[in-house]
Amino acid sequence: MTLVAQPQSMHFDAPLALQSGASIRDYDLAYETYGTLNAERSNAVLVCHALNASHHVAGVYEGQARSEGWWDSMIGPGKPVDTDRFFVIGVNNLGSCFGSTGPMHRNPDTGRTYGADFPVVTVEDWVDAQARLVDALGIDTLAAVMGGSLGGMQALSWTLQYPQRVRHAAVIASAPNLNAENIAFNEVARRAIVTDPDFHGGHFYAHGVVPRRGLRIARMIGHITYLSDNVMNDKFGRELRNAVGTVAGGAYRYTTQDIEFQIESYLRYQGDKFSEYFDANTYLLITRALDYFDPARRVDGNLTRALAAAAARFLVVSFSTDWRFSPARSREMVKALLENRRQVSYAEIDAPHGHDAFLLEDPRYLSLVRAWFDRIAAEFGA
Amino acid sequence: MTLVAQPQSMHFDAPLALQSGASIRDYDLAYETYGTLNAERSNAVLVCHALNASHHVAGVYEGQARSEGWWDSMIGPGKPVDTDRFFVIGVNNLGSCFGSTGPMHRNPDTGRTYGADFPVVTVEDWVDAQARLVDALGIDTLAAVMGGSLGGMQALSWTLQYPQRVRHAAVIASAPNLNAENIAFNEVARRAIVTDPDFHGGHFYAHGVVPRRGLRIARMIGHITYLSDNVMNDKFGRELRNAVGTVAGGAYRYTTQDIEFQIESYLRYQGDKFSEYFDANTYLLITRALDYFDPARRVDGNLTRALAAAAARFLVVSFSTDWRFSPARSREMVKALLENRRQVSYAEIDAPHGHDAFLLEDPRYLSLVRAWFDRIAAEFGA
Repeated sequence: MTLVAQPQSMHFDAPLALQSGASIRDYDLAYETYGTLNAERSNAVLVCHALNASHHVAGVYEGQARSEGWWDSMIGPGKPVDTDRFFVIGVNNLGSCFGSTGPMHRNPDTGRTYGADFPVVTVEDWVDAQARLVDALGIDTLAAVMGGSLGGMQALSWTLQYPQRVRHAAVIASAPNLNAENIAFNEVARRAIVTDPDFHGGHFYAHGVVPRRGLRIARMIGHITYLSDNVMNDKFGRELRNAVGTVAGGAYRYTTQDIEFQIESYLRYQGDKFSEYFDANTYLLITRALDYFDPARRVDGNLTRALAAAAARFLVVSFSTDWRFSPARSREMVKALLENRRQVSYAEIDAPHGHDAFLLEDPRYLSLVRAWFDRIAAEFGA
Repeated sequence: MTLVAQPQSMHFDAPLALQSGASIRDYDLAYETYGTLNAERSNAVLVCHALNASHHVAGVYEGQARSEGWWDSMIGPGKPVDTDRFFVIGVNNLGSCFGSTGPMHRNPDTGRTYGADFPVVTVEDWVDAQARLVDALGIDTLAAVMGGSLGGMQALSWTLQYPQRVRHAAVIASAPNLNAENIAFNEVARRAIVTDPDFHGGHFYAHGVVPRRGLRIARMIGHITYLSDNVMNDKFGRELRNAVGTVAGGAYRYTTQDIEFQIESYLRYQGDKFSEYFDANTYLLITRALDYFDPARRVDGNLTRALAAAAARFLVVSFSTDWRFSPARSREMVKALLENRRQVSYAEIDAPHGHDAFLLEDPRYLSLVRAWFDRIAAEFGA
């Protein structure tokens, strides 16, 4: 049976205090829910999204073909996170460009579009905003919070900010902070955007332009880091796009500016597509939230101490070829949780797809998440 | 004793036929030599350079402090490649921006600056041009040709294009071709340059501008890929540049456009510096030469067949944390050479510095290159 999704929006008048010291008021959060909240309100699962995703986690929109949610392989009726048993909530984060209040919206303090004046938001801020939404939905305690990549950071942060409100947390393809190389890739992408003449210091909306050049470069860099070396070689290798001549595999065209290899064509296409819909200020905000997340920071980098507050039971999953959020980073979290005598299931999935693997339909991955959620469902008798 | 280097230039009138089918005429090659050619003309070593280097391989320029050549740790009096015994030649490749004819020079066919009309040059073309220079220096057979990275590709190509003129070849931190991920990084860098409004289709010289934004991004991407994850974490980690407040290690400033982390400061500095001196068209040409190199291409990708022509004795060196030209790629070359019953010494150096390691002073690395060159010197009784 097809799950039909219905986007919703909730308005929040009261200011939300942010980590930076600033606050944001009069904002909306876009969200979707799937399944039914049980009478005990004990079967809610919150799903947190990563850079290029939204509240549209599962199902399709009425009458819109190919509108599947970004984690539709994971969430739905009969799926690993079974919406026949769980009440699943997807929420778009503040600062995003898919429905919640973001840089392209009106700043109530000035009456003008936020642009670069949108406050810097952190993983902790997102979790606070999500907690308000969960409150408004009448839910005290989440059966689980889950997310991959940046979404996994939010899941982890929930267990630290609201330890009594999260019974389980699934932290997938994530890390306890970004390392220098990850920050470096984010910074290059940001520089490409910020130095695009069409960026206008982040106030490009008023100029009727979009810094597409920068967004394209940012997305191309992102794509390279989401994939593994192996999967790129398998998918593209050194294959040419429009080879001419008589050499096996086609002869080179000898060009520095035109496309020669298939991988170039693929990257340009991904960059073009992304630049059509993604907001440049959102890109800056979300990559900064990634950079800033570091729960061990306030305790001298001691992750074990940082995770002492967590009371949830954890599922941590990593993927062997993910070089952006490597298994070693997941193992750091597992070690710190175990040192705090927390209950942790850890799986390292041997998958060729790099960081992207967390979004793909790997049967071992899906079945282990299913088993973990089956045990959660059993706790409340579903 | 300080080795004083003296840049020289040689003019070539006759057209050089290029792989693309085009040709180039009336060009200059900048070069330097160190040491003395022996009476038998048997002690010449040609050093090939990579992306951001030149003919200035060793020594310093008269009266110019800190003007050491890019491989000065390797080459000089008493050094691993001992200029008291060897006659070492450094040459700047065609299309570069350090003295040899390149895109910033006058096209004799049009009278205008080449710009984007500079012909696409390949590793094979560079080797052909180098062979002419070697001819003009009165050298029939090279005792050795050596290079790292793209320079290693040239060394390998020498053994295939001129098998009887190369007795030994040192192929360091290199690969028999680029994989898809490497091409992808090159392509993003090129797109950043080409889509910079100041690029003007490659004819920016006439506009009195330089596509600095694109060059900066290109260099930042390059730098990330030259370093290892480990060395980045050791050098920069998550250290802040100008932290404020009372948190240990400093509090965040919460900014999306300004520098927050030291790694960002470092990358921006490297990008700025590079954009001051490197030519944008040269960047395109050199990265394309990297992309195109693939000696196995004409023999259905069979590297063993491709390397059958080589008659030299080889030294192949790789570095454990080099993820741009990984040890696995060096081992492919070693395997193919051994299958052709060629003599190969292979060393995999455990070094934390990533691809950059081939330029650094690792004692094990330098001493094994020294031992290899000592054996070569013994062959001609030096």
